[in-house]
Amino acid sequence: MARHAGRPVELVRVVDPDTTRERGFSLPDGVLTDDLSTVLDDPEIGTVVQLVGGLEPARSIMLKLLESGKNVISANKALLAEHGPELFDRARQFGRSIAFEASVAGGIPIIASIGECLAVNQIHTIHAILNGTSNFILTEMSGRGTDYSATVAEAQRCGYAEADPTMDVDGSDAAQKLAILAHLAFAARVNWREIPRTGIDTVDVADLRHAKELGYNVKLLAVAWLEADELELHVSPTLVRQGTPLAEVRGAFNAIRVVGEPVGRVFFQGLGAGCDATSSAVVSDLIDTIVGRTAITFNTLELWSERRKSSVKIRDPGKVPGRYYLRFTVDDRPGVLAEIAGVFGWHKISIASVIQHEPEEEDGGPVPLVIMTHRASAGAINEALQTIDSLAFVHGESIRMRVRD
Amino acid sequence: MARHAGRPVELVRVVDPDTTRERGFSLPDGVLTDDLSTVLDDPEIGTVVQLVGGLEPARSIMLKLLESGKNVISANKALLAEHGPELFDRARQFGRSIAFEASVAGGIPIIASIGECLAVNQIHTIHAILNGTSNFILTEMSGRGTDYSATVAEAQRCGYAEADPTMDVDGSDAAQKLAILAHLAFAARVNWREIPRTGIDTVDVADLRHAKELGYNVKLLAVAWLEADELELHVSPTLVRQGTPLAEVRGAFNAIRVVGEPVGRVFFQGLGAGCDATSSAVVSDLIDTIVGRTAITFNTLELWSERRKSSVKIRDPGKVPGRYYLRFTVDDRPGVLAEIAGVFGWHKISIASVIQHEPEEEDGGPVPLVIMTHRASAGAINEALQTIDSLAFVHGESIRMRVRD
Repeated sequence: MARHAGRPVELVRVVDPDTTRERGFSLPDGVLTDDLSTVLDDPEIGTVVQLVGGLEPARSIMLKLLESGKNVISANKALLAEHGPELFDRARQFGRSIAFEASVAGGIPIIASIGECLAVNQIHTIHAILNGTSNFILTEMSGRGTDYSATVAEAQRCGYAEADPTMDVDGSDAAQKLAILAHLAFAARVNWREIPRTGIDTVDVADLRHAKELGYNVKLLAVAWLEADELELHVSPTLVRQGTPLAEVRGAFNAIRVVGEPVGRVFFQGLGAGCDATSSAVVSDLIDTIVGRTAITFNTLELWSERRKSSVKIRDPGKVPGRYYLRFTVDDRPGVLAEIAGVFGWHKISIASVIQHEPEEEDGGPVPLVIMTHRASAGAINEALQTIDSLAFVHGESIRMRVRD
Repeated sequence: MARHAGRPVELVRVVDPDTTRERGFSLPDGVLTDDLSTVLDDPEIGTVVQLVGGLEPARSIMLKLLESGKNVISANKALLAEHGPELFDRARQFGRSIAFEASVAGGIPIIASIGECLAVNQIHTIHAILNGTSNFILTEMSGRGTDYSATVAEAQRCGYAEADPTMDVDGSDAAQKLAILAHLAFAARVNWREIPRTGIDTVDVADLRHAKELGYNVKLLAVAWLEADELELHVSPTLVRQGTPLAEVRGAFNAIRVVGEPVGRVFFQGLGAGCDATSSAVVSDLIDTIVGRTAITFNTLELWSERRKSSVKIRDPGKVPGRYYLRFTVDDRPGVLAEIAGVFGWHKISIASVIQHEPEEEDGGPVPLVIMTHRASAGAINEALQTIDSLAFVHGESIRMRVRD
């Protein structure tokens, strides 16, 4: 670290409300404390790595650090997605910087890549797997054929899912990271809560099987797609064609596919979370901050600043065209496919492929009917599904997933 | 560019010995000149993008630029691999910087990633596809079943191979890039000419077919592998297991797989050359240089400096263990496989798989015998092959390729 920073780096304080916890390593006497003011009041401390999750007290602590003249390094995407404008304004006001490489896709240097290395490009699209827990669960479900809740329990046992995995599996975590990337790449100011999102908690193992049969793997994709001045943003379980790099990302890995002009397509893959990947990103930020690179980047990027104008509008999700995977539960009798196909025809939606197998048991019970469409607007799909779901021979609500173009 | 640089950037001069060439765009009056001294003697010009291929006059021009106080941006990996020590020393002596993101894997920000973002990691291995021309040719040969020379001719027609593609296809270009990466990642000072290299010009389409049958694709891999204090470096056509990210890199793309501690495995893919990818990297370097990030990085990296000590020794290639794909042309008669297997057993090399098909025509002519070994030292393989190639029923010289572990 000293070699890369060009000078020695001294660890002055470690602040934790719990100073008794077993850490597996020892700190020099006097370093560990539960008193944050020993950091705030020490003018010798120039840079603070703030690894505090959640929104409060993380927000208040960061504001205090900035106000007392510290540069801050953070891995907290929720905090930045929620309070970015306030925190970055405060940093600028006090002439300090916030570095946040670890907040998105831990081990992949995506913040530096989009913010600096690819900065001159007009980014057109970002397709990303940003939640390792979801990708681990989908990989296991698909590989072992186990259902969602059994797989979550297994992931929790292995440490790949938290005790309460809600934010991971419902798409919130990915939406927060997507909001940060969309701001970096498109100067889009979007509240992550406004990003349409569907989690993997709705995915049935049967749909993974049908997708595989059609030549696709299901991934929780975070998508930013610029068309003219309109930016489409969403997070949803999406069928991705097997053999493409994103489709083959397995386990807890993250991946990001960026298409920019002039660079073309660039693909990144690495571990998105965990101590190891996170520490690589945090220490890289620490060096960048100490040598002064962060201050330069922080000033030119003007993140979440009122001065950073964007011409990008967020696109109305209902108008966004796309391909869809749909599954209906229907009576096993003649004329059903014809009638459903007729509804699609009426809404000018063309059908790309159909899976309808012979029922395993001749019990006359309902059977699955899977239809993959060509490009259609989300609005048209909504209307067609409303009609189909109300037909007498259709049981329950239809299942839909996006298909990556 | 002005937004990212935080100030306007003025293009003062474009120097080309040929000022009459059709460029497809127009320059303001007085900008285009064939006189380099208008740049050297203009103290207002702070940074020069030097896009001159080959060694001379590229080397002399860069030295003059540095001596007249310009920061330089280069895409010339041959120049850096050959004259790195001299050029970087001169830059330090005059307090200037050299930026070279475009010199390795164009559109992939690998210089920034290894030099800055992953700087704190102990890099263990780099496996990379660094020559787009070779990868394009291998992809075409494998996909279409066309032989090497027909595919090269096709690649030349499509603009994927130069009129004289020697440096691309014989592994020299990849070895130059590997030397730069090895210096960045391991502080290794290695002359690229000392890196053992085999090109794709020796690859037979039959071997691509056999590899596929064994579940592998053949890639021209540049490998840096640290074990204890010894660094293995080589460039060679290598069998890579299908379904792994490197194996699936097609066409003119480049890719780099880095394993570091603590970050784990990180994978990058993008276009390695061409105007578009190169310009993305060059303009990114230009911004970094203008805002001052390059100067900071350049100073801390101490590239090719005598002050940058490395404890890494280059490993003796004969001692490096690996798995091998071997093809022999043998008489089609009983006892042949037993005798060859016996030679391997004598040298303590174990066999992982064998392909021996029935001959297509019963003409009694020689047939191919393909053997894939488990890990063995290159020295042991050499000795075994020498013995086998001298057997009466073995025709011509055996073919060997590495297999990625």
